[in-house]
Amino acid sequence: MFTLLAVRTFVFDLDGVVYRGSQPIPDAAATIETLMNLGHQVYFFTNNSTKTRPDFVRKLGNMGIPADEEHMMTSSYATALYLEEQGARGKTAYIVGEKGIRVELTAIGMKIAEDGTSEHVDYVVVGLDRKFDYEKMKNAQQAIFQGAEFIATNADSTFPSENGKVTPGAGSIVAAIAAASGAKPIVIAKPELPAMHEVMRLANTDAEHTIVIGDRLDTDILVGNRVGAVTVLVLTGIAKEEDLKTAAPDHQPTIVVGTLSEMLRKLSDE
Amino acid sequence: MFTLLAVRTFVFDLDGVVYRGSQPIPDAAATIETLMNLGHQVYFFTNNSTKTRPDFVRKLGNMGIPADEEHMMTSSYATALYLEEQGARGKTAYIVGEKGIRVELTAIGMKIAEDGTSEHVDYVVVGLDRKFDYEKMKNAQQAIFQGAEFIATNADSTFPSENGKVTPGAGSIVAAIAAASGAKPIVIAKPELPAMHEVMRLANTDAEHTIVIGDRLDTDILVGNRVGAVTVLVLTGIAKEEDLKTAAPDHQPTIVVGTLSEMLRKLSDE
Repeated sequence: MFTLLAVRTFVFDLDGVVYRGSQPIPDAAATIETLMNLGHQVYFFTNNSTKTRPDFVRKLGNMGIPADEEHMMTSSYATALYLEEQGARGKTAYIVGEKGIRVELTAIGMKIAEDGTSEHVDYVVVGLDRKFDYEKMKNAQQAIFQGAEFIATNADSTFPSENGKVTPGAGSIVAAIAAASGAKPIVIAKPELPAMHEVMRLANTDAEHTIVIGDRLDTDILVGNRVGAVTVLVLTGIAKEEDLKTAAPDHQPTIVVGTLSEMLRKLSDE
Repeated sequence: MFTLLAVRTFVFDLDGVVYRGSQPIPDAAATIETLMNLGHQVYFFTNNSTKTRPDFVRKLGNMGIPADEEHMMTSSYATALYLEEQGARGKTAYIVGEKGIRVELTAIGMKIAEDGTSEHVDYVVVGLDRKFDYEKMKNAQQAIFQGAEFIATNADSTFPSENGKVTPGAGSIVAAIAAASGAKPIVIAKPELPAMHEVMRLANTDAEHTIVIGDRLDTDILVGNRVGAVTVLVLTGIAKEEDLKTAAPDHQPTIVVGTLSEMLRKLSDE
């Protein structure tokens, strides 16, 4: 089932899998190089909406991991691709978020509203925004009241920040705007399907030939299972082995490994 | 049942009942004066946590309504009374909220933390804060992670602002902090019971002798029904007569009136 002889698409989560904050995870670079040398496709897929694809390519490059924009999926890029398919080119977005969202929506030809009320807004796009405030919450609410569609790049309530502390994530901001507006967002990234579908479309792959590698059961593993891919939990990030005991069936990975090198061995053995 | 011969306690909601924003509702002053002249107790009870009791007394006074601090219940004052009963005197609160909360918690001898992390925090107290931002959300989250109890003055997701627009309320901020911390707050004000119990305790009244008057089914009427009081919906605020058709049984008022004068007539007729 897992023979590496067939060409496969490996979809790597970033934080907790390839690096932890600013620290590379030791065997990530070698594993990814080996996979590429064997002729496999390697994609990177992060729920982080704050940075641009070139930012992540640079970060990986500095860690000795060969990546390029074409193999990089962020929740902001996925949101832009999703909106482009909805015919959003030329339409206006009010953003509660950071640089990543602004760059990607601008790149597909969307206009960015300065606030939620003084101009017509078609979409309210919400991600992590460390400058989030009451005014932005109100702008988003008013735009949604006036008919704008409510889109969330991702709904992670928390994320581990650089100093190792757990801090509020996009999902906490989404919860505030959902309460204020009475609206439920369309969520683009893991564990929801739109971003995962964009990765598979870019890679021109199907579930049978896709392997999703992540450190979180409730995002990486769940979305991989939802599309029917092989899922690999690597224990270098959030999830611990004991979490598997209490996890629901759709949160159970196909295989569990301590490190990415172990993944390579396990997949080659089968 | 409603005879006005027995001395009763009338608990008036403010916005939508006594005034609308800065506009007094015409027959409120006369109705309240009549009730007082008949020897009834009149209390005022608002979920608004941002102002102090003296602020509200002054506002009502300017509208010709005789009120004093002893008959004024706000969600901030109720929160202070609730915390005082929990032994919070001398303990430390981190506040996400405005002046009303700060004044009331200080008045019962609590210390106010400047942020959620640099000192020990016993309680995170959250109300409407129009200067809410990511930093405050993070401070509240960190304090709750470190063991602080999570208290919400009220959980109204929205409120009508002075200009008639619906804007984000305390409940939207509470939703963000709940998502970020994974904790559920104790909610003090309507439709939850703690604040209503404080009003009844101050008034030294029981449900049988209490009449709750409000303009919202999901706060005023629900909390009145929950304690077993007579509930009066007055159609000068949020709720419309047709809302009664779809409202749940515990949201149905004992009587519905168009105006407070009509309430007086109806109660006298019975």
